[in-house]
Amino acid sequence: MMRRYQVVRNQTLALIRGLSAEDCCAQSMPEASPTKWHLAHTTWFFETFVLEKYEKGFMPFNPQFRVLFNSYYESVGPIPSRPDRGLMTRPSLQEILDYRGHVDERMLVLMTSPMMEEDLITRIEWGLQHEQQHQELILSDIKHLLFQNPLRPPYRPGFSNRDAPPHQPPLAQPIEWFEHEGGLAKVGAPSEGFYFDNEAPRHTVWLEPFKLCHRLVTNQEFRAFIDDGGYEDPRLWLSEGWAECKKRELRHPLYWQKVDQQWLEFTLEGNQPLNPIAPVLHVSYFEADAFARWAGYRLSTEFEWEQIVTRERFGEPEISAIREDLIPLLPAVEKNMGFSGFFRLGWQWTQSSYAPYPGYRPLEGALGEYNGKFMINQQVLRGGSCATPLTHTRVSYRNFYPAASRWAFSAIRLASSL
Amino acid sequence: MMRRYQVVRNQTLALIRGLSAEDCCAQSMPEASPTKWHLAHTTWFFETFVLEKYEKGFMPFNPQFRVLFNSYYESVGPIPSRPDRGLMTRPSLQEILDYRGHVDERMLVLMTSPMMEEDLITRIEWGLQHEQQHQELILSDIKHLLFQNPLRPPYRPGFSNRDAPPHQPPLAQPIEWFEHEGGLAKVGAPSEGFYFDNEAPRHTVWLEPFKLCHRLVTNQEFRAFIDDGGYEDPRLWLSEGWAECKKRELRHPLYWQKVDQQWLEFTLEGNQPLNPIAPVLHVSYFEADAFARWAGYRLSTEFEWEQIVTRERFGEPEISAIREDLIPLLPAVEKNMGFSGFFRLGWQWTQSSYAPYPGYRPLEGALGEYNGKFMINQQVLRGGSCATPLTHTRVSYRNFYPAASRWAFSAIRLASSL
Amino acid sequence: MMRRYQVVRNQTLALIRGLSAEDCCAQSMPEASPTKWHLAHTTWFFETFVLEKYEKGFMPFNPQFRVLFNSYYESVGPIPSRPDRGLMTRPSLQEILDYRGHVDERMLVLMTSPMMEEDLITRIEWGLQHEQQHQELILSDIKHLLFQNPLRPPYRPGFSNRDAPPHQPPLAQPIEWFEHEGGLAKVGAPSEGFYFDNEAPRHTVWLEPFKLCHRLVTNQEFRAFIDDGGYEDPRLWLSEGWAECKKRELRHPLYWQKVDQQWLEFTLEGNQPLNPIAPVLHVSYFEADAFARWAGYRLSTEFEWEQIVTRERFGEPEISAIREDLIPLLPAVEKNMGFSGFFRLGWQWTQSSYAPYPGYRPLEGALGEYNGKFMINQQVLRGGSCATPLTHTRVSYRNFYPAASRWAFSAIRLASSL
Amino acid sequence: MMRRYQVVRNQTLALIRGLSAEDCCAQSMPEASPTKWHLAHTTWFFETFVLEKYEKGFMPFNPQFRVLFNSYYESVGPIPSRPDRGLMTRPSLQEILDYRGHVDERMLVLMTSPMMEEDLITRIEWGLQHEQQHQELILSDIKHLLFQNPLRPPYRPGFSNRDAPPHQPPLAQPIEWFEHEGGLAKVGAPSEGFYFDNEAPRHTVWLEPFKLCHRLVTNQEFRAFIDDGGYEDPRLWLSEGWAECKKRELRHPLYWQKVDQQWLEFTLEGNQPLNPIAPVLHVSYFEADAFARWAGYRLSTEFEWEQIVTRERFGEPEISAIREDLIPLLPAVEKNMGFSGFFRLGWQWTQSSYAPYPGYRPLEGALGEYNGKFMINQQVLRGGSCATPLTHTRVSYRNFYPAASRWAFSAIRLASSL
Repeated sequence: MMRRYQVVRNQTLALIRGLSAEDCCAQSMPEASPTKWHLAHTTWFFETFVLEKYEKGFMPFNPQFRVLFNSYYESVGPIPSRPDRGLMTRPSLQEILDYRGHVDERMLVLMTSPMMEEDLITRIEWGLQHEQQHQELILSDIKHLLFQNPLRPPYRPGFSNRDAPPHQPPLAQPIEWFEHEGGLAKVGAPSEGFYFDNEAPRHTVWLEPFKLCHRLVTNQEFRAFIDDGGYEDPRLWLSEGWAECKKRELRHPLYWQKVDQQWLEFTLEGNQPLNPIAPVLHVSYFEADAFARWAGYRLSTEFEWEQIVTRERFGEPEISAIREDLIPLLPAVEKNMGFSGFFRLGWQWTQSSYAPYPGYRPLEGALGEYNGKFMINQQVLRGGSCATPLTHTRVSYRNFYPAASRWAFSAIRLASSL
Repeated sequence: MMRRYQVVRNQTLALIRGLSAEDCCAQSMPEASPTKWHLAHTTWFFETFVLEKYEKGFMPFNPQFRVLFNSYYESVGPIPSRPDRGLMTRPSLQEILDYRGHVDERMLVLMTSPMMEEDLITRIEWGLQHEQQHQELILSDIKHLLFQNPLRPPYRPGFSNRDAPPHQPPLAQPIEWFEHEGGLAKVGAPSEGFYFDNEAPRHTVWLEPFKLCHRLVTNQEFRAFIDDGGYEDPRLWLSEGWAECKKRELRHPLYWQKVDQQWLEFTLEGNQPLNPIAPVLHVSYFEADAFARWAGYRLSTEFEWEQIVTRERFGEPEISAIREDLIPLLPAVEKNMGFSGFFRLGWQWTQSSYAPYPGYRPLEGALGEYNGKFMINQQVLRGGSCATPLTHTRVSYRNFYPAASRWAFSAIRLASSL
Repeated sequence: MMRRYQVVRNQTLALIRGLSAEDCCAQSMPEASPTKWHLAHTTWFFETFVLEKYEKGFMPFNPQFRVLFNSYYESVGPIPSRPDRGLMTRPSLQEILDYRGHVDERMLVLMTSPMMEEDLITRIEWGLQHEQQHQELILSDIKHLLFQNPLRPPYRPGFSNRDAPPHQPPLAQPIEWFEHEGGLAKVGAPSEGFYFDNEAPRHTVWLEPFKLCHRLVTNQEFRAFIDDGGYEDPRLWLSEGWAECKKRELRHPLYWQKVDQQWLEFTLEGNQPLNPIAPVLHVSYFEADAFARWAGYRLSTEFEWEQIVTRERFGEPEISAIREDLIPLLPAVEKNMGFSGFFRLGWQWTQSSYAPYPGYRPLEGALGEYNGKFMINQQVLRGGSCATPLTHTRVSYRNFYPAASRWAFSAIRLASSL
Repeated sequence: MMRRYQVVRNQTLALIRGLSAEDCCAQSMPEASPTKWHLAHTTWFFETFVLEKYEKGFMPFNPQFRVLFNSYYESVGPIPSRPDRGLMTRPSLQEILDYRGHVDERMLVLMTSPMMEEDLITRIEWGLQHEQQHQELILSDIKHLLFQNPLRPPYRPGFSNRDAPPHQPPLAQPIEWFEHEGGLAKVGAPSEGFYFDNEAPRHTVWLEPFKLCHRLVTNQEFRAFIDDGGYEDPRLWLSEGWAECKKRELRHPLYWQKVDQQWLEFTLEGNQPLNPIAPVLHVSYFEADAFARWAGYRLSTEFEWEQIVTRERFGEPEISAIREDLIPLLPAVEKNMGFSGFFRLGWQWTQSSYAPYPGYRPLEGALGEYNGKFMINQQVLRGGSCATPLTHTRVSYRNFYPAASRWAFSAIRLASSL
């Protein structure tokens, strides 16, 4: 546990290498947060949900931080205005790093105890899983921030040159399908191992026969949709998606730019020529759904997805292969097309709305606000992306975003009824 | 068919008795439409989807109306700005009534043909079902409009004094439950009879054991929620619902007003003292969900609801009992607590998001825009209300609204997992 | 007085001939009001500021109207939401006409008194001047409303065919100038005759030498500005005007439309081909200012304008010539180019902001809210338009609108420093 | 010239002592700018308007900066989105400081030339005056930013403890008046010395008799206004000001806070108990105007103000007294009540709208956008504040802000007609 704690916490710090204090302070939109805020809030989480309960003679590092870095836990106390997180130039980045170090020391002391209560262990694991979620958010948010800069600065130059794809990337290949004959199926987290409350309880669903595509939609395929007038044909779109298109004058995925007749894509390495065989990323649910309709298919449900991944055992080899490497191989992954793409190439929008499973019970206390209160007007995404820590991927994992969101590393996998 | 056509069309006209041309022209918010627009649009529907295809030598009543009264059919042509429907003082109400008469005459000629094609019959029935939907919208929208007037004028005075409740209203009774042991179940429209595309295909679902309340939540019960601080406790609310509460300063259902320490409710008869044993109406999904959480229960899924109604055969007697009376007994219903409340007291929010059934296929052509494109960010409501035409209720019927909507006749029925 | 009362009040009624109750009820934007509201509010003015004070045993026609038709007099009591005036479908147009008749009867009784106090006479005259202001607003607002209708219905067909221009219209002529050598000048209302508080006190100003154009800018001249890229050149615009241009995508005056390469202008008679020698109307201050800069001139100050009109005695002959005809010759005026255009062709934007004259004192009591509280962020317009009642024009009259407004009958007269 | 250049440029750097790179990067609202942006934009000004024209073989420091730091000069080229200035985390603060150093070196080389053209000297002086304007903006903007932080961090602790008031502060004294008998007067910049284009031409105005208060309104006096219900009485307010009050729920000046029944004021030193005899600062024109009406007075015109200051020779001794000290004595000034307050205690709102003087001509070329295009919907403020560089004060200086603005160091001086 102690080792995992250190690895995960250090991993967060590794993400800010090369970022200035200025980079870490700015907030590009209300939905995104400054890097510094992520660094502080994840620390606040351990202080509030672990130390305050289990540390003898608990004293907060700084009583003001108890309020400043509360994200949305109404039960804990007042919450600063979310869109103003970028205005908190104080405390400084260095003070936040001190805060992290301070809490880490106290956490490590706590973890030396030979007999940790079950509840304590659970809370620490929640804290680590929470931190890993924010690791991905750090990358999503900093990418969005840097994109607002007319200079289009890279997050980390030369980020993905570390290794080459191991073999012929499947995204360049013709589409193949995993078929499923339907029937009763078990979904949701199995009882062992960590899972969030929203992945439980494991329960039964009935599936009709369907098939699921063996790879993600590529940039090249999405260009064909654009070239065919996909953004101008209302019949392809959900009504709300069409209104969004018109209002925001959408014409392409979030980070694409057409410069001198050439398509560029803003990446963590800065602007790059659009890679035709890379998965199309940063599309909204509306775009994913319209693309699928245009292609004659549909998006899968979250349970169809889960069944195929379970049956084909994609979750296991992918994850085990890299289990020794607890630090996400972010650079490698971005160019590496060697995986099936279920977990490492992009979160896959599903047509399932984010709803509680039958018999769902949120945790007791303030942690009960972690997931349950967001179960409305969001769509479930499954899998993982190049920005997802590898030890944070699970077959039963449910990511979720509003249908219009585009700044997550979201992708498209096609499905069809049989 | 011809008789049904006349009955339904006349029913619409009956709804405007007592309304002035001014009442019929105004629009109280972008989501609502003027009565005159409803009168015209339902007529446009028959002209566009029936006459244009089946009438020999078809000529539109007025070519401009083809555009003016298109609601959202992008395939048909340009669509006037929705929030500006209230600015269309011309054509006048009388011209619209002439338009209705004119189209009715041509429709009746068309229906005298002894051999009507299957497709023609289907289109006419869609037109009638469509008209019945708009009958309820007329009442929802005019209620909302009149409520904006500081005078709180009634839609129709003495509207509900026609008869007395036949027996002890069940809403005053203690809560009882219909229990269900779960398992595989069939849901969706059976193959015979009319249904909208969104009710099909009939398919299998798996249900966990649950129970469903035998009556709706009453005003009195909702007052207890308010008095207990329900609107001030964020832990009871979905996050988006809580934000909505704060932003709009919500403190009670839409039409409630506290005047001199007394609760009044605006009804189609004007302001009335709040009836403690009437069902609470005009609540958002957020309010329904928060109430259920406060009460220790939850809302049902649409399939749980459908299973109980089917098993208990609520659909049949209720509807058959009044089948001879094709004109909705609006006044009687509003005070009549003698029914189970599944179909006549208020649309019941479910925790099911509005999504396509497995294998769902929208209709061909422009009618394909009828339902499918709204399947995002909406919740399903089941049953019917005092404003729903009785022959427009169906066990498999799926009504839908965004979670924050409150101007539909929406109600709360509790459920629980077993 | 009694005769003048009847003439003015009847004049208002004459304006609604041909309008339906629907036309009179709708409100096209928050700044505009429904015709019905104008009819009621002008009546409320007499009831509140005259009858309530001077009628023995005063009883309001309807106590609710005291609140409903208060425009902005905070001292009088609560004020209904301005943008919702169009939702007041009740009271009906007929009830408002009854209200008018009722108040008129009581006013006439009051005026039969042989000895009317000075204050009473003043209040009645304020009421009549107020009513005349609203006569112009009725026309401005109904024009704006009808323009929102895709059918572009005319306010009154054949409105301006009654007579022909008496002689060669000066707007087709080359520009000529009235020169002024500057120096000390007296401005503001002389002590005799009626004037609003904002026209007083008469006071001294110093003028630098200047010249003022003898006619208004024509549509043809404004087209040259458009064709020369006037709407695309930021150097011609005030910064706020340029932002407004970009935000609202302005490309031409409010009621112009380019259809099939031809310019049309929406008028009170419906769409008409743009008349090249008519004055350009319905431009904002920003447009007027940008045009003047493009043309190498500027707009005048309100005092420069007043000096020329006084010196050249434009006010007198124009008004006296038609004093016997108290009913505005609206149709005739619109096409009649025979006048100098100072008072009948369009309100002329000045570069003077709307500010109090030195020593300005608002009236006592609620009438003190009539003018003074609007003296910020507005520009003064001088003269009059085709919609201004002829007996409501004055050399010292100060009309005012925010710089971005375009729905008043506003025009451009050029000036220059010497 | 060279010495003045160095002094002014260094003064800007002195202002950022104690600020972190984070502090310098954030933007608290669209109207404010990050400190870093101010540092860069003032440098861009010299590069664009001086070096580009006069330096042989001119090469920009960084071609991208030419666009990034353009504020509003449409003639120069594209302008980055103003509300997004806070998102420019790159270039870093250090790069901007390098940019400053680089341009300074080149400027100094340019200034070694023994024969500088008149136009070059003028441009350099504009650049310095421009820089001094931004020095005050840096302080206004950073104060606003730090106030958004729940920690209320000071800009510079101990900022104003350097010296004590030299004698009895006049703000604690009873009100006295400067009287003026009116008549013709000359206003505007005299021909010698630097002035902005908007201060010219010097011209004649006619003044009515008036009096001007000898000191500013104090915090204590403003508290009396609050305690008397000033913020709840619509009769005291301009209509737009009242709407602003209601919409933003204004109850006190911008930086006041009531904590535990005690009034605090946020200052550049952090939160401080409200000083009763200090001038009330950070009020909008609406607040200043309402206060004056409540007190039975009015605000002065800009010309009344200018006449008294000229006649009483306030401009001269105040400025000469500190002319040897070119670096603003910011700390000293804030507590020093020993001056008349015309130039050092707060910008004084006048009832004059910001309009061109008769015969006003903007500069040729892009510098013509400096002032002229803002002459609408702004009010003139005269004098200076504790944040105004002392060598940047002038009797004829015209500062201007929209009437609702409160983040400038704005104050109230009463006047009255005689």
